[in-house]
Order: sequence, then C-alpha cells, then structure tokens
Amino acid sequence: MKSTPCAAIVGAGRTKFAEHWDEDPRSMIGKAGMTAFESVDKGIRRRDIDACYFGSFLYQVTNKIGLVPGYMSRELGMNVPMINTEAACASGGLALHNACIGLQSGNYDAVLVAGFEKMTDRQDKITDDLMFAADPHEFEAGYTFPGLYATMMTRYMYEYGNGDARCEEALAQIAVKNHHHCVRNPFAQFQEKGEITVDEVKQSKIVANPIRILHCSPVSDGASALILTRPEIAKQYTDTPVYILSSHEATDHVSLYTRDNITGVNATRIATAKALKAADLTIDDIDIAEVHDCFTIEEMFFLEDSGFYPKGEAWKHVYESCESFKGPSHIPYDKNGHELTVNLGGGLKADGHPVGATGVRQAYECFRQLRKEAGGNQIDRDVNIAMCHNVGGTGGVATVHLLARDLE
Amino acid sequence: MKSTPCAAIVGAGRTKFAEHWDEDPRSMIGKAGMTAFESVDKGIRRRDIDACYFGSFLYQVTNKIGLVPGYMSRELGMNVPMINTEAACASGGLALHNACIGLQSGNYDAVLVAGFEKMTDRQDKITDDLMFAADPHEFEAGYTFPGLYATMMTRYMYEYGNGDARCEEALAQIAVKNHHHCVRNPFAQFQEKGEITVDEVKQSKIVANPIRILHCSPVSDGASALILTRPEIAKQYTDTPVYILSSHEATDHVSLYTRDNITGVNATRIATAKALKAADLTIDDIDIAEVHDCFTIEEMFFLEDSGFYPKGEAWKHVYESCESFKGPSHIPYDKNGHELTVNLGGGLKADGHPVGATGVRQAYECFRQLRKEAGGNQIDRDVNIAMCHNVGGTGGVATVHLLARDLE
Repeated sequence: MKSTPCAAIVGAGRTKFAEHWDEDPRSMIGKAGMTAFESVDKGIRRRDIDACYFGSFLYQVTNKIGLVPGYMSRELGMNVPMINTEAACASGGLALHNACIGLQSGNYDAVLVAGFEKMTDRQDKITDDLMFAADPHEFEAGYTFPGLYATMMTRYMYEYGNGDARCEEALAQIAVKNHHHCVRNPFAQFQEKGEITVDEVKQSKIVANPIRILHCSPVSDGASALILTRPEIAKQYTDTPVYILSSHEATDHVSLYTRDNITGVNATRIATAKALKAADLTIDDIDIAEVHDCFTIEEMFFLEDSGFYPKGEAWKHVYESCESFKGPSHIPYDKNGHELTVNLGGGLKADGHPVGATGVRQAYECFRQLRKEAGGNQIDRDVNIAMCHNVGGTGGVATVHLLARDLE
Repeated sequence: MKSTPCAAIVGAGRTKFAEHWDEDPRSMIGKAGMTAFESVDKGIRRRDIDACYFGSFLYQVTNKIGLVPGYMSRELGMNVPMINTEAACASGGLALHNACIGLQSGNYDAVLVAGFEKMTDRQDKITDDLMFAADPHEFEAGYTFPGLYATMMTRYMYEYGNGDARCEEALAQIAVKNHHHCVRNPFAQFQEKGEITVDEVKQSKIVANPIRILHCSPVSDGASALILTRPEIAKQYTDTPVYILSSHEATDHVSLYTRDNITGVNATRIATAKALKAADLTIDDIDIAEVHDCFTIEEMFFLEDSGFYPKGEAWKHVYESCESFKGPSHIPYDKNGHELTVNLGGGLKADGHPVGATGVRQAYECFRQLRKEAGGNQIDRDVNIAMCHNVGGTGGVATVHLLARDLE
C-alpha cells in the first residue's frame, strides 16, 4: 500500500434516504453537514473549513435553484470558495474527487463535501429528467434509464449467460443481498421493507424487460456530507481518521450506441485500474466496496470491470457466493476463499439513491465500517481497505476512491 | 509581484459571440477548443491533455443535456478526468479556477478549460431560466435579473449620486465605452452595431427602471477555451506563455434581501483582495482588466469593490475619465495619471455574454492583449498585468484571476 494518502476523512454525516416531502436541499444539506461536523471527535469549527464541494444532478429542474455556491454561502454563513459539480449519478463521487484535488493543491487544510438530491418533488417527470444523463438521441428514440440498462443486461445475458437460468438468478440475488444488507441500516430507504426473495424479484413488475422493479434503485431524497482534511493534520481532529489513498475519475461516451461494447463500463475499468495503481494495491486487497448498483446489472459489471472476477464469469461466482451463504450477517462475494463484501448498507438498490448524495454516502458507509462504528450493521470481520465506486449515466463517468483506516 | 504562478496559459480560442442558430454546445466547444489547440506555438497533442474543465449554466434546461463529461468524452475522444461546474454567470471563471487548482495539485501537466452557453434556443423562457441564479423567493416575488440589478443601481444612485446628473451619465458612459471597445473586435456580438452615444443609452427602452436596454449585456451563444499547463513546463509549448499569478473565488448570499448592503458586491471585495495579496500586488499594479459588466452598474461596483476608486466615488471618476478622453483608441479609467483600461474587447455588454463562456473569454482577451496579438484591437501601450473578474448571480460568487506576461 502506498503510504502517502491524498486526504483524510475526519467526520461524516447523512440523512435517512427516503421520500422527504417536508425537506428541501438546504435543510437536508444542513442536517447531513451538521451531523458530519458533530462526528469529528476532537471538534472542528466552521471557520476551520477552507472550501466546500457540492454535488447534485437535477437541482435546477427539480428544485428550481442554481448557483449552489451562493445558495449555500448564505445557509452556512461562509464566504469561502465553493464548487458545485454535476456529473449525473456520479455528482457525489466527483464532488469528493474535486475535494481531494483541492486538498492536494495545498490551498486548503480542511474542506466540506456534500452531495444532495431532492427528487420526489418532481414526481412523474423525473424519468424524463434523468435522461439528461444520456445522449439526447437516446431520449428522442424513446429510451428511459431502465431501458438503457435493460439493453445492457440483455446483451450481457445473451453473450455470457448462454441461456443458463443461474445468470438471471444471480442478477436477482444481487437485489436480495442488498436488501438483506439494509435491514440493519437505520438510514436505508427500504429498511422497513425488509428482506426480499429471488422469487419476488423474478415475479416483480417488468419495467423494461428484463429489468423488473426489484432490479432498480428507487427515487429518493437525501443528503450526505464529509469533512476532509490534509492527511498530515487529520489527527488534530480524530485519533481514527480514514485515509483516502487515491481518488480517480475516468470518462467515456455518454451514449451506448457509440461504444465498442455494452457488457461493461469502460470508465469503471480505467478509474479502478488507476486508483489501484496509485495506491499500489490490487483488487484482491479490497475488503469492502460500496458499488454503483443503480440496476443489479451494474453491480455485476463492477465485479468484472474491476478485475475481481473474469469477464463474463461474475454471474457464476455471484450465484455460488449467494447460494452457499449461510447465516444472518453480510453476504460476501467469494474468490478462492478471499471475501469482498459489497454494498454493506444496501447500496443504491436498498439504501436509496438520491443521485448527488450517493457518491458521498458511499464514503460515509466505508468511514463508519472501517472505524467499526456501523452499529448493528457492522461487518463481522476486521476490514481495513475499502473502495467506493460511483457511475454517471450508463458509464459516461466513473469515480473510484480507495480508503484505509490503517496505513501500515 | 510573486514569481511563483499557479498556471500558465499556452493557447486560447473562442467563437464569435452571436446568435448561432446552427450551432450546438459540442460544435461551439469543438471550434473554440480547436482554435485553442492550434494557437499553441510549438504544438500540443490531444494526448498531452490530462484533464478537462468545463463551465456552463443552463445547459440542462436550454440544451437538454447533462453529464457534460460523458458528452464531451465522446466528442473529444478522450477518457481523462473531466469536471463540469455550474456557478451561474461565473461558471467560466470557476472552471478556470478549478483548472488552476487541478494543476496545483500536481496531478496534471496540461489541461483544457472550456466555457460555453447556447442560450438563444430558449428564446423567451431565458429570462425565467436565468433566475436560477437568484433566490427562489426573488423569482416568486416577480424579480428578473434586470430587476435585481435595477434595485442595486437605484440604491447606488440614491446613496452616492445625490441627484447629480453625472452619476446617471457615468452609468451610460460605461456602455458607450464598451461598445467603443468592441468595434475593433471581430468576435464581438455588437461589432456591426458599432458606436453608441450617451444619449442613445439614456433614451433606450426601459427594461427595469433605471436600467435601460443599452445598460444590459445581451443573450448570446458562444464558447471559449484555454490550454493551461504547469508554469514550469509552459515554455515547452510557447516562448510567450501568459502566467496566472493567482486564482481566487469567494462566495456570498445568493439573495439581495439578506445582504448588509446592495451598493457593491462583497464576493468581489474578498476575491480581489485575496488574489492581489497572493500575487503580492495592489490594484494600482493592474494595467488592464476584463470585468463582469452584465449591467453597467456592475462595472461601477467593480471599480469600487476592487479598491481602484473609493466607495461611492467611482461614478465621478468614470465621468471624468470618459469626458476627458480624446482619440480613437481604448478609453482608460484614470486615477492621478495611472491608467486602468477595462473591457478591451467590449465586455459582456458589447462582446456578448454566453454565460458559461464569459469567464474563459475574459482570460482569452487578456492572453491576446498581453501577448500583443489582439490585432486591430491591440491596446496602444505596453501592458503586463491583467485581472479577470467574473460574477455569478447578483454576487453569490466572484472569481478573480491575475495574469502576467513577464514575471520580472
């Protein structure tokens, strides 16, 4: 492991992800941000924050606000530099990436990162709005996001599943696993819904064949926030910082129809490889990962794009890992005895997916797990290295962050 | 002057600002970007670019696109990190600021910066859309942007003009000066319109009293682009780079109604002071400035907020500078013989204001002037230090960049 991290997380907060009809972006950012401030063990003051990084996707059309820096300057009572980034569903991951770059620049000692999305206000128009994350021609051709991912899932099942029923089964098991993980996460949108079964997934309503409603992440409201510092000064704020070993972003075609293949996400491949190389790690060093499972096929892609399983074979391993799992705790993916546990809080699927909040929420979850502060949802083995993986659109952007509690 | 700049500009390009009914964001970014690439004296290749920074305000509602990184990855054929920032009318300045931070982080050697806005498609809805840059309550109260600036201009004239006709005259002279500057700028939206007179401004249609149509910057389409490198390697690309000495952003309340006073822009004060301090310069060291004159009152505010003229007195000096000016060249603001020439290309007022492009266009103009490459519009004295000043909303964000050709 490379021992010179690019940043340290010293505090983290979030709201519950849910339908929050009485909230607006500033109230949600306020709550997540306040929790993040209060979570800093040795305390941090507002005047210690040198810059703020925000991420959100649809705030203009959905919330009728723009100029988030000015909007938040007033709410926070701060005049520091503030950057707002939009990268569709990777807006949160990219806000975190920007914050790491900001700290690396040497201009700042401590920064606030916050992701948010207030989606439910928009109701039935949200499906159209989300298509801003695709190519306009795909929208005009009648695609929705479930439709685009259904195209990818269909091709994956055709090329690699070869009609084997276990492939479809494995794609359902991902949803089952992530709902299983969320039942001990009090912030998860579907905690109350509880466990689901493979049969329930396979019999749930078709959204865009072969994607059924239980393959999909929900429409959510929520915010999440982190306090980051330069790694050298992190212990001024807590004895147990979580270090960001590397932070990478890659981009690729916004449109499916111009890509060489659609059975994976090229941006994930590039960003994962760069992040691992920068931290001098391999994918087998990762203990836990928060992965972008907007649809279950995307978690399957990650397992192959990251190199954890060979191309076209993840579904067999997912099937075997889930089938062989016994007991009430988190369900790990197994590779010859090495365990990678994915989406411990339920992922986008079950924790919820308030778009801009997701990439920041992933780091929140890893921060809590690595510090053994995840309460009833704490993973039952000692883990030190975590990966956060956030995707925008069908793969136009991917961000990857590697986190570690102990640097040695 | 501080001799360790944060970045160097080695290439710059732009489109004409105009109503471009046949263009879209990618074609405009393509043209501006290509010109920027081609302007690099010793050549630069696409694979030398390590990251891209984009700025735009209303691309989602106006152009029905989102996820600009994915959109541009395809257009540019690049998979490098790309960041898109929205900060209303300061989106371009903030993209440039982000690029400087990126280079300072040590992660990149060379980056592309591009700002764009395709506004005319939106036609009569644009006035409402622009209000995303204000507080939602201001929109609901019936304000438009001319209305907000009219409120500021009214208060300024009341507090400082004391009924003196020269105050109103000076606010008209700013428009006259900027139209005068644009007539030798072939990229300016109003080059063909040519000179205007103070009487024409004062008799032009009322938009929101006391703001008349000739106090306002126009609705425009356009893009601008820069190639930036780490300062240490700039001479690999050109013998005459323009250095960015400092890059600062400040934020303030998005809403007028919560500010302590509305006869100036606090974010400009903070960002200007920080940028000057970082470069070890004073406002009197600045030779030329590209200033945010969305309405003429905003240029007046800059002259006071930057400290060039004392609070409440800029209008007298503007009046005297413009009245005493003889000759066909640029009209400088005079302070005891020291000349500060503002908005050499015509400013937002006459060069045009495709929102996200403006902050980048300002650096383009300074790059050309400092390198003595501004052709028929070249300033007729030797100048070395330039300031770029970009404002979002009514002052929720301000960015300030200080540029120099020679570091000694």
